[in-house]
Amino acid sequence: MNEFELIAKLSPTLATNDQVVRGAGDDCAVLDLGMKDQLILFKTDAVVEDIHFTKDIPAEKVGRKALARVLSDIAAAAGKPSSCLVTVGLPKNFDPDYVFSFYKGLNALAREHEISVSGGETTRTTGPIFVSIALVGTVPRNRVITRAGAKIGDAIFVSGELGDSISGKHLDFEPRLKEAQWLAENFSVHAMMDLSDGIAGDLRHILNASSVGADLFSESIPITRSAKLKAKFESSAKPPLLAALTDGEDYELIFTLSPKDAVAVLDGWKANFPKTKLSCIGKIVSQPGLRLRDKLGIRELPKHGYAHFEKS
Amino acid sequence: MNEFELIAKLSPTLATNDQVVRGAGDDCAVLDLGMKDQLILFKTDAVVEDIHFTKDIPAEKVGRKALARVLSDIAAAAGKPSSCLVTVGLPKNFDPDYVFSFYKGLNALAREHEISVSGGETTRTTGPIFVSIALVGTVPRNRVITRAGAKIGDAIFVSGELGDSISGKHLDFEPRLKEAQWLAENFSVHAMMDLSDGIAGDLRHILNASSVGADLFSESIPITRSAKLKAKFESSAKPPLLAALTDGEDYELIFTLSPKDAVAVLDGWKANFPKTKLSCIGKIVSQPGLRLRDKLGIRELPKHGYAHFEKS
Repeated sequence: MNEFELIAKLSPTLATNDQVVRGAGDDCAVLDLGMKDQLILFKTDAVVEDIHFTKDIPAEKVGRKALARVLSDIAAAAGKPSSCLVTVGLPKNFDPDYVFSFYKGLNALAREHEISVSGGETTRTTGPIFVSIALVGTVPRNRVITRAGAKIGDAIFVSGELGDSISGKHLDFEPRLKEAQWLAENFSVHAMMDLSDGIAGDLRHILNASSVGADLFSESIPITRSAKLKAKFESSAKPPLLAALTDGEDYELIFTLSPKDAVAVLDGWKANFPKTKLSCIGKIVSQPGLRLRDKLGIRELPKHGYAHFEKS
Repeated sequence: MNEFELIAKLSPTLATNDQVVRGAGDDCAVLDLGMKDQLILFKTDAVVEDIHFTKDIPAEKVGRKALARVLSDIAAAAGKPSSCLVTVGLPKNFDPDYVFSFYKGLNALAREHEISVSGGETTRTTGPIFVSIALVGTVPRNRVITRAGAKIGDAIFVSGELGDSISGKHLDFEPRLKEAQWLAENFSVHAMMDLSDGIAGDLRHILNASSVGADLFSESIPITRSAKLKAKFESSAKPPLLAALTDGEDYELIFTLSPKDAVAVLDGWKANFPKTKLSCIGKIVSQPGLRLRDKLGIRELPKHGYAHFEKS
């Protein structure tokens, strides 16, 4: 049984109450605790040594990334982060300097986004170091954006450039908080999430939650220079388009809105965030599934096994 | 460097903002997110296999306890829990039934207290199973109780009976949520916390935070039958009073209030919670430190090394 199957079996059994606006299955939980104009966003994210990071990555970068991953989820909800709690599992003979460096990176990013580190705990483990960050934030009551709102005919956008994040960007990415807030303030965003597992995997969450399909325009997928170079010089590397579609940890925003807003969002974005690309990469259609359109025609992106796709 | 030294060095470096009412160092973080009458309580707690629980403890009990520990912290702040997120680190070849049982115990306790499990995540680990629970709740704005409010002359109370929780109660304890809310609604509670490391260790947190000392009445310390029996039949067991003072995981409330309220709180408690003991165990004094008074006189409870105390 894999993680997705486990979660699918567990989700319907979870305790709930009338304060839950969105529970398990979206980027953040959304809670109504009785604030007049705001709802609470609530999210946790864990990273584990040897799974998500290795000893050779500087602790400062591990700390920064641990927090950045959660902030990216708050961005996906166009929310404003407020406060986090930090849990660190440490072996008996831990190196205090490692922990101080970890917190240095985490605190610096927290200060950048004016959020507090309001406590947490260190605990002992007999295994690898693990970190879990819990975060609360807020979102205006009338502005909840989830994965479930994509409409047929919507234009699909993605921020930044995709692919080969593992070469470095996954440690230094900027959570798209400002961009997401600007989007939500100025446009009716129908569905949004952050890309952690690649378009080919993540967009499917939006499609499933919204009961729609999508056609992507092959030539509009923004590909990083790094993914292009890698494909050129490493014979074993993925083709750059495949890297952009299937590589994880891009932490860019993917969102949909009405095609009548498409030009305005592209123009406004360029004026407000001139250093960050915004690309219209496809459209929402009624036919279920995810397809890629290029000069040669249109083909299905298979649900599982991107190796299949690679060979096709 | 131990955990306390690490935290003492880290705490002053943590990022903060103007929404933090209480940050690191109390049972829960307290946040002002702009609700009219309420503040947000925010807490995380982790348990790790082989450190906090072992494989032979039924998963259902591990799940119940993981949540109960956090609820006990919300009780210490006289708050109302609202929603939790659950993080579980699992080895590659995890047993799905273990996870389902874990969630069964956790969900049952969540339903008892009408809180939601609004998501979370499972993640891979190469080490022991770990669990981290994050919880948000609320507390009336004018009713924040912390460790820092104990006043000279206050009577000190403890709920339930103490000692030898490890024989079983640590898995089945009831978080004192109702009791704490009743206390806060009916009395001016000056300081409160939950007992996780024993009176001798935990009361000191209240004393330090409040810049006061305490005299305890030896004969008033409520001792569990289990601790008494253990002392009687196991030659290596702690004396029962020592067990009650120094054993961990009692998860009872310890609190202080004005001596003029002492009779009313004892009478009211008895009427409302007839099955749970409430004991007045001592008083807050100006002289720093923690002392134990018995028929033979008064003696200091040393800061470190309860073995010393045992032999005295």
